[in-house]
Amino acid sequence: MQILGEMIIGGTAVKGTVDAIYSVAAETGKRLEPAFGCGDANHVEEACHLADAAFDSYRALPDDVRAGFLEAIGRNILDLGDTLIERVMLESGLPRPRLEGERMRTVNQLRLFASLLRKGRWNDAVLDDALPERAPPRPALARRRIGLGPVAVFGASNFPLAFSVAGGDTASALAAGCPVVVKAHPAHLGTSELVGKAIAKAAADTNMPEGVFSLLIGGIEIGQQLVSHPAICAAGFTGSRQGGLALVKLAQERKVPIPVYAEMSSINPTFLLPAALKARGAAIAAGFAGSLTLGTGQFCTNPGLVIALAGPELDAFLAIASAEVAGKSPGIMLTQGICAAYGRGLGRLREAAGVEEVATGQPATTGSQAGAALFRADASTFLANPVLEQENFGPSSLVVVCRDKAELLAVAGHVEGQLTATLHIEAEDHDLARALMPVLERKAGRILFNDFPTGVEVCDAMVHGGPYPATSDSRTTSVGTAAIERFLRPVCYQNMPDSLLPPVLQQANPLGIWRLRNGDPVKA
Amino acid sequence: MQILGEMIIGGTAVKGTVDAIYSVAAETGKRLEPAFGCGDANHVEEACHLADAAFDSYRALPDDVRAGFLEAIGRNILDLGDTLIERVMLESGLPRPRLEGERMRTVNQLRLFASLLRKGRWNDAVLDDALPERAPPRPALARRRIGLGPVAVFGASNFPLAFSVAGGDTASALAAGCPVVVKAHPAHLGTSELVGKAIAKAAADTNMPEGVFSLLIGGIEIGQQLVSHPAICAAGFTGSRQGGLALVKLAQERKVPIPVYAEMSSINPTFLLPAALKARGAAIAAGFAGSLTLGTGQFCTNPGLVIALAGPELDAFLAIASAEVAGKSPGIMLTQGICAAYGRGLGRLREAAGVEEVATGQPATTGSQAGAALFRADASTFLANPVLEQENFGPSSLVVVCRDKAELLAVAGHVEGQLTATLHIEAEDHDLARALMPVLERKAGRILFNDFPTGVEVCDAMVHGGPYPATSDSRTTSVGTAAIERFLRPVCYQNMPDSLLPPVLQQANPLGIWRLRNGDPVKA
Repeated sequence: MQILGEMIIGGTAVKGTVDAIYSVAAETGKRLEPAFGCGDANHVEEACHLADAAFDSYRALPDDVRAGFLEAIGRNILDLGDTLIERVMLESGLPRPRLEGERMRTVNQLRLFASLLRKGRWNDAVLDDALPERAPPRPALARRRIGLGPVAVFGASNFPLAFSVAGGDTASALAAGCPVVVKAHPAHLGTSELVGKAIAKAAADTNMPEGVFSLLIGGIEIGQQLVSHPAICAAGFTGSRQGGLALVKLAQERKVPIPVYAEMSSINPTFLLPAALKARGAAIAAGFAGSLTLGTGQFCTNPGLVIALAGPELDAFLAIASAEVAGKSPGIMLTQGICAAYGRGLGRLREAAGVEEVATGQPATTGSQAGAALFRADASTFLANPVLEQENFGPSSLVVVCRDKAELLAVAGHVEGQLTATLHIEAEDHDLARALMPVLERKAGRILFNDFPTGVEVCDAMVHGGPYPATSDSRTTSVGTAAIERFLRPVCYQNMPDSLLPPVLQQANPLGIWRLRNGDPVKA
Repeated sequence: MQILGEMIIGGTAVKGTVDAIYSVAAETGKRLEPAFGCGDANHVEEACHLADAAFDSYRALPDDVRAGFLEAIGRNILDLGDTLIERVMLESGLPRPRLEGERMRTVNQLRLFASLLRKGRWNDAVLDDALPERAPPRPALARRRIGLGPVAVFGASNFPLAFSVAGGDTASALAAGCPVVVKAHPAHLGTSELVGKAIAKAAADTNMPEGVFSLLIGGIEIGQQLVSHPAICAAGFTGSRQGGLALVKLAQERKVPIPVYAEMSSINPTFLLPAALKARGAAIAAGFAGSLTLGTGQFCTNPGLVIALAGPELDAFLAIASAEVAGKSPGIMLTQGICAAYGRGLGRLREAAGVEEVATGQPATTGSQAGAALFRADASTFLANPVLEQENFGPSSLVVVCRDKAELLAVAGHVEGQLTATLHIEAEDHDLARALMPVLERKAGRILFNDFPTGVEVCDAMVHGGPYPATSDSRTTSVGTAAIERFLRPVCYQNMPDSLLPPVLQQANPLGIWRLRNGDPVKA
């Protein structure tokens, strides 16, 4: 399939005429053909109008039919073959094996939501039967969830497949019965067009309503118009804190405010408890350096902060981790803007009083590369300087040295909201871990043990979310099946004739799904 | 128990010294003894500090122990006996049978949340077992929900028991493991003190941590300080749109924004479909007039808008409904401010072009009373004038006459977000009902059939919520067990040793609760 520089407005390819923009090769900084035409307010209006018009018919489709649509998207993405992989490699600078893995993850994510739809659990069907004998009589009440309405999706630069056009936000919104309007990320426009056309083809192949999916191209203004459009009922965003908060503010200022699920920034504190450091310090150091530099450190869950007690075990850890980091090759970053921001972040750390650079990775040889770095500071220095808590997106981490357990707990209590917190522990560390847990539960969406945070499993139990400012809404996750809940709201039906009720709530349970009936889960 | 004009700060009765304020008898407008001392910023600070300090120990209590606390609150409220009922009657002007019913509803609500805690479902426990053979291996992942943190509660004037100090917001927040700080509603200060002390006594009797509950007295400033306090993690509010939106704005402007669940305004459209109007018009008219004037129309779910097709059946309905309304006695309103606002609302309707007053209830004989009123307008008039869509809190309703089904659907699509929508239908109306459903599902949290919206059952399936501006968050309900979800967020544990996991997530399921394990609900 050829890339033509087109948007997709409700199933139709449209070339924008406002401005011509180009993707840039991450490695060389060179402009990539073709030119992409930017859309204007009329395109936003048309995409949103079509999405609104499609909503009722799309959400009324049987779950099985929507599941088939999601699976067709996955097949069409695979059918793009190397055309897709090569374009993403060019635009993102990410290596082939990583992108082949990310493509599979994207397809499996679509399949997982399809399977969730077929199980029917997402409806959260609840029935309280009538109690005509009670004084006063209780009417029959039944509840299910429906989609919020059309959803705006802003993809992430660091997951050009799994968190972009057909990524987690799109998959969960489509599963929820919500049409989706994506604003393409300017760092991977060609990838966006290819994947967008795979979605549009799947929609056509499975007879979805015209407005179920659109893809817009343009600058910040297009994104603002999209979130401000009256037909848009929610938005998903993964990116910088500044960008996320700007969208949240716009959404709050609307005549009818809408939720924005922004996944923004996290430094993912990693606690090395004493017995673990003693027993496995060298192995943890090697694993840590690998997690830190994986994908040139461009993960939301990159371990940007390490916390441990002062002592010879920590000195040994630092020595090994430093050697590991010093040996790491530099990596290409997603964009030159991200690379420059990383360099500024390193500068801030190098200038900060009381912060020592204990290891520097192999130096970059081009302006698009970033090398790893490891810093060290005392807890008192860390606690006094908010700059040290800023996310520095890339392969850089700060080891905070605590003089005792009280100081370690103080650091845990001090950090902002996070996506993850990690503990390395042995049996002798359990008491300290128990003391840390209540603190960390209030700080993070996911807490890991003897593991590294950079892997995010797509499953039912996953929480990729966390207290502000990690995200704009700590009650949700953007990865895993629970991500669908972001785009749903409950509706209750009182005394409704059975033949009018949606099948998931009919007496006979024709779909055979799990429902909560008079207080207990039943399939009957 | 004597009313002393006191606040409660973490279990201790405290007399504020900033200002002296009084409750007023709803019927006579006379000042009621004693004087209540208002708190200041130090009291807010102390209550919030204690709530924060109590959070971890309170949420760590076994569900069964928290359930016992909720039940003890209910017993203590009943133990207040007539002292409570007589004070609420004085302060609210509501009649004894209504308040005795509301007291039982309040106690049953506490019991329902206790029973929810004992069932363990609220934890939303999810387990995805490790898959060590998979490439790459999957770690064990387990998810549960925990409380957001201390919750601020602003009670409603129209439910001085069931939606005030120990009402739905407090019960669901305490059930969620969140300490609660209530700002007493100025219209029922004595009621608030009595109920607050019942809670404080229950907390002491069941050995709850000191800061689990506080009750503050004061003006708007105290409420603002409360919502802005860093320790507060969420707020529940029931009242005016203006008040709710002011709190939402404050909450968004915090350094760490928090959710505010504001239940604000609704006119609860009621659709009379043709066959139902023909078959049961007279009965519907009588039921409607009763629902309209119940409690002097002071329900969030009062039927303030009726929509039907023009014709002789509607004329007959209007004649009977008018006669019914004309015969209704005036009622005492909750406060003179509410009564005056109702009068201004009637004035707006009487001045509006194209609006006809078709019935006026028995006239008020005092300044604290309100009489019912029924208005009529054509759909074109209604659609053109936003004033006609404003909630007029009290026993007033507007009948909108549509010339055909298309106009009826247009009115349905035009109204703002609502708590409820009601349809009166017969079998011949099912097609029109099917056409209305997708529209109404997007507008309302609860859809009723052949019933009246003023009864709100407290159960699992209830949704007392709805799209903006009915509430500030359409994804939630403030009545029923699902209200607990407002104060919870998910936490995921990866590869955590079984002995460190909370019991709800341990392999052996020691609490024997329903959990989602590898995709299916199981108790094993």
